[in-house]
Amino acid sequence: MKKALVLHSGGQDSTTCLAWAMKKFNHVETVSFDYGQRHNVELQAAKRIAKKLGLKNTVLRTDIFSQLGKNALTHNVKITKGKNGLPTTFVPGRNIFFLTIAAAYAYSRGITDIITGVCQTDYSGYPDCRDATIRSLEKTLSLGMDKPFNIHTPLMFLTKAQTVEMIEKLGYFDLLGLTHTCYEGKNPPCKKCPSCKLRAKGFKQAKKHDPLLK
Amino acid sequence: MKKALVLHSGGQDSTTCLAWAMKKFNHVETVSFDYGQRHNVELQAAKRIAKKLGLKNTVLRTDIFSQLGKNALTHNVKITKGKNGLPTTFVPGRNIFFLTIAAAYAYSRGITDIITGVCQTDYSGYPDCRDATIRSLEKTLSLGMDKPFNIHTPLMFLTKAQTVEMIEKLGYFDLLGLTHTCYEGKNPPCKKCPSCKLRAKGFKQAKKHDPLLK
Repeated sequence: MKKALVLHSGGQDSTTCLAWAMKKFNHVETVSFDYGQRHNVELQAAKRIAKKLGLKNTVLRTDIFSQLGKNALTHNVKITKGKNGLPTTFVPGRNIFFLTIAAAYAYSRGITDIITGVCQTDYSGYPDCRDATIRSLEKTLSLGMDKPFNIHTPLMFLTKAQTVEMIEKLGYFDLLGLTHTCYEGKNPPCKKCPSCKLRAKGFKQAKKHDPLLK
Repeated sequence: MKKALVLHSGGQDSTTCLAWAMKKFNHVETVSFDYGQRHNVELQAAKRIAKKLGLKNTVLRTDIFSQLGKNALTHNVKITKGKNGLPTTFVPGRNIFFLTIAAAYAYSRGITDIITGVCQTDYSGYPDCRDATIRSLEKTLSLGMDKPFNIHTPLMFLTKAQTVEMIEKLGYFDLLGLTHTCYEGKNPPCKKCPSCKLRAKGFKQAKKHDPLLK
């Protein structure tokens, strides 16, 4: 039985990964992180989508990021470019942290295939989304837990438009209507924040209408 | 100015690493993890030692391990060999997790040298203590945060007896009287748990009297 664990934020990218996993694996579970994000609507979206697909969704809580200094994900900080040239939404090591915890959880569930929606393309230059980081982490986790983990990143080299096309081809396009993307936590989306704009651009280029916009 | 961050549990090994860092770096800080360990005496030892040396000690809290299943560090589980051949004190990915968070904290403090007391020798076969894991993680963290991190592991290939000799040569032997080692949280130590036995063996082989035993 091929089992997989999908890191599911409730957003467009990880939902596309979930659709991908549904096609590739016999048994799929999802894990979401309650890390003190400003908007709980993301976790609600993840629950909603898991329920729709009849999957187990586990929420793991952590308050570590709020202890590491201010950032725009867990604090009321303006989304802009920080001193280090990265957006203020950057939390150092965030994806390494999430994937490490996901792998530890997968270990306890007897799962070694882990799927994440990180992506080099169209992104804001977060260094922990790069393929080189993920491949190195895959090796680190496999060595550190003595399990042959596979970290699958089906979106790594795709544009936003291509991810829209991917979920359509996989037959799960309608799930996008249940996702959440807006950094401002708005539903309907604010259409003005960087996340909303990036999402809109992808749908426009793919010549599709976003089901979230009714 | 050469700055370093030491992961300090308050135990014998990380205290020896702290002594090592005091000799090698101009500025030293320590970070400790409050991860729901059964005994808070470890954190008290870390505070005590930092105070003695006039260093900043930061405690980061996380309750993630207790969410990942039962283990002998955060639950009242007997210390024995588990089904996977590892002791029940094994928490998958624990050191990867600690070092990732320490690196994220170091990032915020402008520090790239991190020191940890993990050790291949004399240990219970925890795969995340191995040099290969640490070297891989060093690369992962450097890629993932775009900073050239160095993870120093001065005890990696030493026996317990050699770590006793090391701290003596560094001139910090007396600090061992302030450390905590016992898995059972006892002070004076229980002398029966695996940690107490391992510690006693090291002092015996180094022909030194443990200052913790008065």
